[in-house]
Amino acid sequence: MSATATSGYTDAAMQRVMAGNGIEYAYRDLGESDVPLVLLQHFRGNLDNWDPALVDALVTDCRVVAFDNTGVGATTGTTPSTIEAMAHDAIAFIEAMEFQQVDLLGFSIGSFVAQEIALIRPDLLRRVVLASSAPQGAAGMHGWAPEVIGAVGQPETSPQGYLEVFFAPTATSRQAGQQAAGRIFGKTSDRDEPTTWQTRQAQYDAVCTWGIANHSLLQRVAAIALPVFVANGDSDPMILPRYSHLLAGLLPDARVKIYPDAAHGFLFQYHEEFAADVHAFLEEAG
Amino acid sequence: MSATATSGYTDAAMQRVMAGNGIEYAYRDLGESDVPLVLLQHFRGNLDNWDPALVDALVTDCRVVAFDNTGVGATTGTTPSTIEAMAHDAIAFIEAMEFQQVDLLGFSIGSFVAQEIALIRPDLLRRVVLASSAPQGAAGMHGWAPEVIGAVGQPETSPQGYLEVFFAPTATSRQAGQQAAGRIFGKTSDRDEPTTWQTRQAQYDAVCTWGIANHSLLQRVAAIALPVFVANGDSDPMILPRYSHLLAGLLPDARVKIYPDAAHGFLFQYHEEFAADVHAFLEEAG
Repeated sequence: MSATATSGYTDAAMQRVMAGNGIEYAYRDLGESDVPLVLLQHFRGNLDNWDPALVDALVTDCRVVAFDNTGVGATTGTTPSTIEAMAHDAIAFIEAMEFQQVDLLGFSIGSFVAQEIALIRPDLLRRVVLASSAPQGAAGMHGWAPEVIGAVGQPETSPQGYLEVFFAPTATSRQAGQQAAGRIFGKTSDRDEPTTWQTRQAQYDAVCTWGIANHSLLQRVAAIALPVFVANGDSDPMILPRYSHLLAGLLPDARVKIYPDAAHGFLFQYHEEFAADVHAFLEEAG
Repeated sequence: MSATATSGYTDAAMQRVMAGNGIEYAYRDLGESDVPLVLLQHFRGNLDNWDPALVDALVTDCRVVAFDNTGVGATTGTTPSTIEAMAHDAIAFIEAMEFQQVDLLGFSIGSFVAQEIALIRPDLLRRVVLASSAPQGAAGMHGWAPEVIGAVGQPETSPQGYLEVFFAPTATSRQAGQQAAGRIFGKTSDRDEPTTWQTRQAQYDAVCTWGIANHSLLQRVAAIALPVFVANGDSDPMILPRYSHLLAGLLPDARVKIYPDAAHGFLFQYHEEFAADVHAFLEEAG
């Protein structure tokens, strides 16, 4: 792999676009393809929280656009407290970019937003990747487990808390986590603005609301006719892998893969394999 | 493997037991363990339709009891046309055997019966294996696909129809299918009574009723607190693998495994691997 390929996302300049909703969105844009792959970020994450190794692996085959949603990082505005509002804000960004059709890769809370976009505006999407995901209303996920929100929900985030949630408690996974953390937090210049406590509170309100157990709401995703790739780590303590199975069973056209010895951040740990799986999925005939 | 081990199920004598419901059940009983593993058979299958290679692999580690449910094969009575009635009939057999607690391995329609037993009488069960299964009410399974019921639903069953549904359309899977069919249909003496058209009609009524799409009924399996192992082949045309994911997502304590290059009869194709997976599951701590 060339030096350019490994340093691409780290060195990509932040760009800004004004959208029809009055919000100025911060984003990074790399690679080339007819249909861009738009990334939807996890709880409290900004542009810098995408593992550059994953983005660079994705960029080898397609245009990848990461952005901060309303109120997050360097994007203006106030973070809304519902997944539905976040989906409308993401659609406004996609419209501002003048993309006619996109693929989505939603990670964690970003995967909830991706589902909502697929329900609100299916024609905007070609294919959807849901990483560390769950359907709205699934039983047993009303807020994260105490040790999870304790690890990543504090006013000041810590590398230790990050590793505990995003990587499995094994030597192999924690070593991969140290490497990913080095790539993510090692960037020293042109960093995005940190996410605020307002963002944390609004996003966690949205997560808790999404997780109110409601069996009837599980049926919503049956309306997503698009091809979907559902993926998670086998030891994710934040969004249990059983919810990936549930999603894949409820969605009419889903594939599912559970990566071994991995947790919430399986896509960073297995960045090469996951990127190859995403490419294979995006390039499926039909 | 010894000659005894490979010929165990093929040579096992059929036994009979009278139950409290007035039905005389035909069964075969091999091996030793504190908790017997009771097998629940597929659509139109009798005792002879269990692949002897699978039963023998299971018997290396536990007592295995296969039986014909009411009206099937050499068992007396008339086959009922609901899964619930079949579950009560299976419970009557287990009571007649004076088993205090059993593990269940339900295959296809037998896996529907196993779910129903787990709901009706959870205390009778320790652990449950659901092979080629689906939860009641899942969308898209109201009766089998035309090519599936066309292949296995005719008055006279054919080896070709069996292979088309139970094995994937690949050289490897079809070869495994020929071998399994040779073991199953090669038995020449002491065969069970053939299943009747009454059994076929009643069982297919039950299958179609189970498959009436009803989202609210999906919630029933959330009441199964027992550990469950859900398994299927990746190319099952009869009960799609997505329903295994759905089940595993709805059940509170499930593991799921999808066997590659295999269809409805994955457990015969992978008899050694599947038996090892079942043993590992049954022997999990707790």
